[in-house]
Amino acid sequence: MKLKDASHHSLQHLAATVLLAAPLLLGGCAENGSSATTPRVSGSADSLEQVAIERGLNPDEAKAALETYVAPGLYDEFTMVTSGGHSGSIYLIGIPSMRMIKEIPVYAPNAWQGWAQGAEEGERVLDDGTFAQNLKGLPRLTWGDLHHPQLSMTDGDYDGEMCFVTDKAAGRVAVIDLRDFKTKQIVKIPNTVTDHSGFLTTNSQYFVVTTFQPSPGGPGEYAPIEEYAEKYRGAMTFLWVNWDTRRIDLELSFQLELPPYWQDLSIQGKGDYEDLAFCNSLNTELSTGRSAEGLPAMEIGASLNEMDYLHVVLWREAEDLVQSGSPKVIEKGGIKVIPLEVVQEEELLFFVPESKSPHGCDITPGGEYVITAGKLDPHITAYSVEKIRKAIDDKNFEKRDPYGIPVLDYDACREAYVEVGLGPLHTVFDDKGNAYTSLFLDSAVAKFTLGPPDVPEDRAWQLVDKINIHYNIGHLQTPASNTVRPRGRYLVALNKWTVDRHPGTGPLHPQNLQLIDIAGPKMRLLSSTPIIGEPHNSQIIETDRIAGWRVYPPGTDPATMSASPHATQQGEERIERTADGVHAHIVAIRSHFKPDTIRVRQGDRVIIDITNAESAEDATHGFGLAGYNITASIDPGATQRIEFTASEAGVYPFYCTEFCSALHMEMTGWLLVEPR
Amino acid sequence: MKLKDASHHSLQHLAATVLLAAPLLLGGCAENGSSATTPRVSGSADSLEQVAIERGLNPDEAKAALETYVAPGLYDEFTMVTSGGHSGSIYLIGIPSMRMIKEIPVYAPNAWQGWAQGAEEGERVLDDGTFAQNLKGLPRLTWGDLHHPQLSMTDGDYDGEMCFVTDKAAGRVAVIDLRDFKTKQIVKIPNTVTDHSGFLTTNSQYFVVTTFQPSPGGPGEYAPIEEYAEKYRGAMTFLWVNWDTRRIDLELSFQLELPPYWQDLSIQGKGDYEDLAFCNSLNTELSTGRSAEGLPAMEIGASLNEMDYLHVVLWREAEDLVQSGSPKVIEKGGIKVIPLEVVQEEELLFFVPESKSPHGCDITPGGEYVITAGKLDPHITAYSVEKIRKAIDDKNFEKRDPYGIPVLDYDACREAYVEVGLGPLHTVFDDKGNAYTSLFLDSAVAKFTLGPPDVPEDRAWQLVDKINIHYNIGHLQTPASNTVRPRGRYLVALNKWTVDRHPGTGPLHPQNLQLIDIAGPKMRLLSSTPIIGEPHNSQIIETDRIAGWRVYPPGTDPATMSASPHATQQGEERIERTADGVHAHIVAIRSHFKPDTIRVRQGDRVIIDITNAESAEDATHGFGLAGYNITASIDPGATQRIEFTASEAGVYPFYCTEFCSALHMEMTGWLLVEPR
Repeated sequence: MKLKDASHHSLQHLAATVLLAAPLLLGGCAENGSSATTPRVSGSADSLEQVAIERGLNPDEAKAALETYVAPGLYDEFTMVTSGGHSGSIYLIGIPSMRMIKEIPVYAPNAWQGWAQGAEEGERVLDDGTFAQNLKGLPRLTWGDLHHPQLSMTDGDYDGEMCFVTDKAAGRVAVIDLRDFKTKQIVKIPNTVTDHSGFLTTNSQYFVVTTFQPSPGGPGEYAPIEEYAEKYRGAMTFLWVNWDTRRIDLELSFQLELPPYWQDLSIQGKGDYEDLAFCNSLNTELSTGRSAEGLPAMEIGASLNEMDYLHVVLWREAEDLVQSGSPKVIEKGGIKVIPLEVVQEEELLFFVPESKSPHGCDITPGGEYVITAGKLDPHITAYSVEKIRKAIDDKNFEKRDPYGIPVLDYDACREAYVEVGLGPLHTVFDDKGNAYTSLFLDSAVAKFTLGPPDVPEDRAWQLVDKINIHYNIGHLQTPASNTVRPRGRYLVALNKWTVDRHPGTGPLHPQNLQLIDIAGPKMRLLSSTPIIGEPHNSQIIETDRIAGWRVYPPGTDPATMSASPHATQQGEERIERTADGVHAHIVAIRSHFKPDTIRVRQGDRVIIDITNAESAEDATHGFGLAGYNITASIDPGATQRIEFTASEAGVYPFYCTEFCSALHMEMTGWLLVEPR
Repeated sequence: MKLKDASHHSLQHLAATVLLAAPLLLGGCAENGSSATTPRVSGSADSLEQVAIERGLNPDEAKAALETYVAPGLYDEFTMVTSGGHSGSIYLIGIPSMRMIKEIPVYAPNAWQGWAQGAEEGERVLDDGTFAQNLKGLPRLTWGDLHHPQLSMTDGDYDGEMCFVTDKAAGRVAVIDLRDFKTKQIVKIPNTVTDHSGFLTTNSQYFVVTTFQPSPGGPGEYAPIEEYAEKYRGAMTFLWVNWDTRRIDLELSFQLELPPYWQDLSIQGKGDYEDLAFCNSLNTELSTGRSAEGLPAMEIGASLNEMDYLHVVLWREAEDLVQSGSPKVIEKGGIKVIPLEVVQEEELLFFVPESKSPHGCDITPGGEYVITAGKLDPHITAYSVEKIRKAIDDKNFEKRDPYGIPVLDYDACREAYVEVGLGPLHTVFDDKGNAYTSLFLDSAVAKFTLGPPDVPEDRAWQLVDKINIHYNIGHLQTPASNTVRPRGRYLVALNKWTVDRHPGTGPLHPQNLQLIDIAGPKMRLLSSTPIIGEPHNSQIIETDRIAGWRVYPPGTDPATMSASPHATQQGEERIERTADGVHAHIVAIRSHFKPDTIRVRQGDRVIIDITNAESAEDATHGFGLAGYNITASIDPGATQRIEFTASEAGVYPFYCTEFCSALHMEMTGWLLVEPR
């Protein structure tokens, strides 16, 4: 057997050859020899090597296959809660298998889950967040651009209770309950038309959201674009979370008016500096585009200054001012607002110069450093939070901006400046004192060491590894990266383009999630997974930290998570004629609706309360009634209300849209609308 | 080294031990010995075994991991085109990795793809298929229950050109072009309110769809449920496909009126029997439920008869009758209809008894046998198509049904009766003469042999294997199962329930796709993958048979797949004031819209034509304009029109929703609506 041949044979084959000959000369080998034929070892080793070769997997790929496979019935170690961008949904993805476990509809109706498609539950939530509530001339808002999911935290670590998300398109936020993984509330942020990022304060008391494109107020408010500098404003809004109701309460919320720079990603200080909030900005040039009117396009106009401003907000002092009942705090659009002049004169806001047009604004696990990256500068900048605080206390100002906001001395605040590569965007962290920055232009991830106390001076702030990405990475994420205790182990690259990485399924390409092993000194690519929607940003939590209810207690209204006044007991199923129509009290249980026939007159108001009387896990029933455009999903134990006017006569069959039993096909009924 | 210990060591370790000792006594072994240390072999074999043990994978699981992993940048061998049930979408899934490659929105608006969310393209397609076209009192239909995707065929095998789908909820069909994987047409089938299955005739000339719940006509038509037997009717509709326009044309389509049994799955004959169509039915009892009115619930009322009727339609004769211009063929609801009486007197329809409440109706690859399964009977029944044809010719009738339709002699038509297990539903085929039937109650798949010519008499119609499924399997699928040439290799179980198989993410559980290896004599479970939507049924095609366009030719209207009259060349970007408003001719290219500022007066009509001037693959731009609820996705080369009335004043920012470049964040603009 030649060496080169041997390398094409399985080790088992090789060993068998040797062992076959060995016993003749070497009795002592016999036992070993026979052991080579014990099923467990030969069965596996033999086939693993062979299967890898047959499938054309090189050793690294074969290893990755074994490292990412999750056997049927087992759960993934981590769950990635990722935004779906302008799909308006959240997606849950298992790590390391990268299997999609669930979609949570938020800003867009969802037919499969019956979300805002006839059942009162979702309709009400969606309508509460639509502009049309105040501006009747606008259509109902049935999409959103879901960018930044934030998992609720207790003592700075994920508690698996709730998830809060933003809507870049419409300046809204939504509240998702992780007991049933449903959207419970959508809130329009007053006095804004867009937002982008959001963060939760320690113990999730406030969900803090910054604007993106400024405006002269909320939807419907107008000012000429020529008066941009004077009349357009940005904002940082502190939305109060009422943990009894698990809802945002505008009553106790407040908003700081900001200059019309474009506020972007934001975070809270940690430890001794929890009272600080940090926020990126771009377009300190106050460009408004208007390229067809002889002005530079935004992409040029907003890139003229060398430096933009990292915002530093003394939010606890702002909160004190609001709670003090100061007359300087005004009421506007249903929320308490600190006007920009007050923000300035009360010294609630400071700027630190940062490389222009930044994306990322991330804080290290211990809270010592804030890391930003100007995407046109191949470095990341690490600011010492302690130094920033000192510069504020020392009034160490370079200058003031046109709105009178102090600009802190750059050199006094900067800790480190690390060259990482082209187009640096966002930075995440592991459990070993390393940081990982996404490089959009390089299509790569750079790994570098943090400074003290995580890493000693002599090894601090050094680029230690780099890995190529396919392609155009935006955000990236590691388990619990934004908490006080990142878990490390895996990194997921959220890539905007796939180009040739997946089969041609039309001009619209999927985006791409790449799973990377970061346990060792070198990053290793494990898998590529296409994904629907735009996975804008995500957070990664241990799967065993999210434990949703598997059934509802009998007669639960998912909107309140408590007993529904509309629940129907078995035996009490009935149809009641009311003054203006018909009220059906229906129980759904395998495999029929009772009652199953609803007789109305054309023009009648129809109210259908459906209670799913199942207590078995997974025994969801659907209620599909085409024509009146109703699809509801009633989970075991849940009660849902459907209400509409039978404006057109005819025979409208309804049926259970969830395959619930062998006799599921027969789980049907009739809405009979007699002509007037 | 003891045997039991050896089994816990990697073979590499064992071999190394032996080979280390061997050379001392056996020089001839030395070369072999050293070969065991060549990187390729030792590197892989060693770590594969170790990684498997570290991850707790047993040998079968480790093998499955290697068999299902598709390395980054490589494509899956097969693509499963699966329905999304009442999500209203199609999903594309790669086999063997089971990665989701794409969602194709069909019956429901889709925010991410900008489908029916402001851009004219999707809006028009969706509105064409909505009941509200004729019944103004009904809401727009924004969901459907997408059940049976059918890939277009040439000479009985997939050609990768088009996909046709049904809508169980509303009795509609949709047409998807596999050049860009977009929905091009939704058609309401006249005179029906529901449908379920559909099949394509040889060379895809007709898409044939059967009703599910019968009705007294189309939406809006009413008859008391008490007159069900007399006035309610089912139908089999032959929808003509115009392959020049790639659209369904009702002009050349026709419909057979059927008794008000519930027609279900259907297929066409093959080879010499292409002129026959077969269709299951249930509820020959004519039950209408009404359990609250003292009648048996549907699930009981529709299960009283021992046998239901397999429909046999002589569709070529029906087509001849229609094309002959016979006065017996009437025009109704915009389609040519053969009334039930004519169907009966022209002998276009025959019945064969089948076990009650069947699900599956499948034809073997060669067309010799039709296999049905009554889900309350643990057997599948195989009918000889030749015998059916002979029974028709011999007028070998058991009786006639109440509508005068002949019922063929059961024994004269039956070829085989195979016990497979509890709750048999659907049957698919491989390339070796085997059939696979899903068992809903057993939660299993049964494998049995077909008869001649596929399998010789002595081995024919035998149950040969069974595998457990988790849980509640509905449809199942194999590559090209319904073609003249099934490919075998893999089987996918489409399971309705997952119960405990995936993490608790609320009471609504995902459904489950299980991949099974059917290459060998025994079926082997390879993986379990949760999925969003309801994967009702699917078809599996070689990935290299679907080759979608990767970009559009410049200025393409996706609705017509030809040059758009609304396309704008670079340099011709402009805004024109019209009599009633404003018309913006915008070009989108990395990274700006030009023009980027649209100034209108409140109440103006606004027309925005956007042309994506990119020619680079994957360079899609989005157009998001909240407030007016517009999200469009403009793929490279495409032109899309957006039209609305600026009914409310205010400042409405718009932006590119697809992360297209490092300066993507700056790709923004303003809709400025000045108050009147």
